Amino acid sequence: MAWLQREIELPPYPRGFHLITSHVVEALPEIRRLQVGLLHVFIRHTSASLSINENADPDVPADLDRVLAHLAPEDFPYDHTIEGPDDMPGHVKASLLGSSLTVPIRNGQLGLGVWQGIFLCEHRRNGGRRRLVLTVHGE
Amino acid sequence: MAWLQREIELPPYPRGFHLITSHVVEALPEIRRLQVGLLHVFIRHTSASLSINENADPDVPADLDRVLAHLAPEDFPYDHTIEGPDDMPGHVKASLLGSSLTVPIRNGQLGLGVWQGIFLCEHRRNGGRRRLVLTVHGE
Amino acid sequence: MAWLQREIELPPYPRGFHLITSHVVEALPEIRRLQVGLLHVFIRHTSASLSINENADPDVPADLDRVLAHLAPEDFPYDHTIEGPDDMPGHVKASLLGSSLTVPIRNGQLGLGVWQGIFLCEHRRNGGRRRLVLTVHGE
Repeated sequence: MAWLQREIELPPYPRGFHLITSHVVEALPEIRRLQVGLLHVFIRHTSASLSINENADPDVPADLDRVLAHLAPEDFPYDHTIEGPDDMPGHVKASLLGSSLTVPIRNGQLGLGVWQGIFLCEHRRNGGRRRLVLTVHGE
Repeated sequence: MAWLQREIELPPYPRGFHLITSHVVEALPEIRRLQVGLLHVFIRHTSASLSINENADPDVPADLDRVLAHLAPEDFPYDHTIEGPDDMPGHVKASLLGSSLTVPIRNGQLGLGVWQGIFLCEHRRNGGRRRLVLTVHGE
Repeated sequence: MAWLQREIELPPYPRGFHLITSHVVEALPEIRRLQVGLLHVFIRHTSASLSINENADPDVPADLDRVLAHLAPEDFPYDHTIEGPDDMPGHVKASLLGSSLTVPIRNGQLGLGVWQGIFLCEHRRNGGRRRLVLTVHGE
C-alpha cells in the first residue's frame, strides 16, 4: 500500500474539544502494516477545527474551549452575523486552530506522544456530523 | 507523476485575508490526473500566513482581519519595532495562523469542503508580492 | 531513499521561542540528496509547540513569547491547575501554535525563505528535553 484515503463522518458533538483519536485509528486498520509514513487528517468545514492536545484530564479540553471563547468572543462587533452568534467566532477559531493535522506513523502506529490525543474542536452549538478526509501514505 | 513542485508569486495585496484558491489550482493543472494525493502550500515569508476559511461572504475575511488585529494589536509594547508598527503584529499573526497548509487531493480535485477556500493572510500594509512553494505528491 | 524517519531529543530550553533550524537540518544530512520532497517535524508534547518565524532579530522571539503570555495568561480561571500555573497556558499555546510543521525540500535544501527559521516554542518554565519526530519523504 502506498496511498490510502478514506472519508469518515463523526457523530455530532456539542460545542467544545472532543477526543477523536479512536475514531481516526479505527477507520484505518491498514496503518498497522506501515513501518514509516504520515497520516493527514482534514476537516471539510469552516466552523470546526482539529487540534492535538492533552488526552487525560477532561478539564483540559473544557479549559481550552473557555479560553478560545475568550479569544474569539461572541460579542465582538462582527459583520458576518446572519448564521447566528456562534458562527463568526467559529470561523475565527478555525483559522487559529487549523483545518488539518499531520501525524507521523512508525512501526504500525501513530507516533503521538503518551499524552497526545487528536481533538475535534466543535465551534458551533449544533454543528451536526462533521466530515474528515483521512489520507495515509507510507511503506 | 509522483512529485511536482512549483513556486508561484502572488499579486500584491493590501492587509487582510484574500481568497487565492484559484491562483493555486490554476498553477497545478496536473492535479486533474491524480486519484489520491496531498497538496502542500508553503509561504516563504514571516509577516504573511495561509489559512482555510469560508469562501462565500466577503464579511468573513474582513471580520477575520479585524479580530486578528485585536489579538495582535499594533500598540502592544513590542521591542521589535524597526520595520514599522505593522511588522511585529504580522509576526505574531504568522505564528498563530501558520506558514503552510496541506489539502487532500481526490479524484483529480482538491478535497476542500463546499465552503472552504484558501486565503492569503497579508499582515503588512505594503507586503508586496508573496512567494508560495506548491508541492504535490500523489498517484 | 523514499522515506526517512528519525527521532531527536533537543537540549532543555527555558520558556520562550528558540531557533532550532540547525538541530533539525544537522539530524538529516540525507536531505542533500533529494531534489524534491517534504520534511515533517512533529513534537511529542502538549506544552511545547513548533513555529516558523523571523530568524534574525532576537527581539522577535522575545516579543512572540510575551504576546502569547498575554493571549494565554496564567491568571485565567483554569480548572486544570494541578501541574502548575504554566501548564494550562502551555496547552492553550500548543493548540494555537500547533504540534507540527511541514517544510518543502528542493534542490537538497529546506525551502525556507531567507528570513524563516524553525522555532521550538517552549511553554513551561522547566519543560526538560523535548522529543521531535522528523519524517522526510522525497526523491
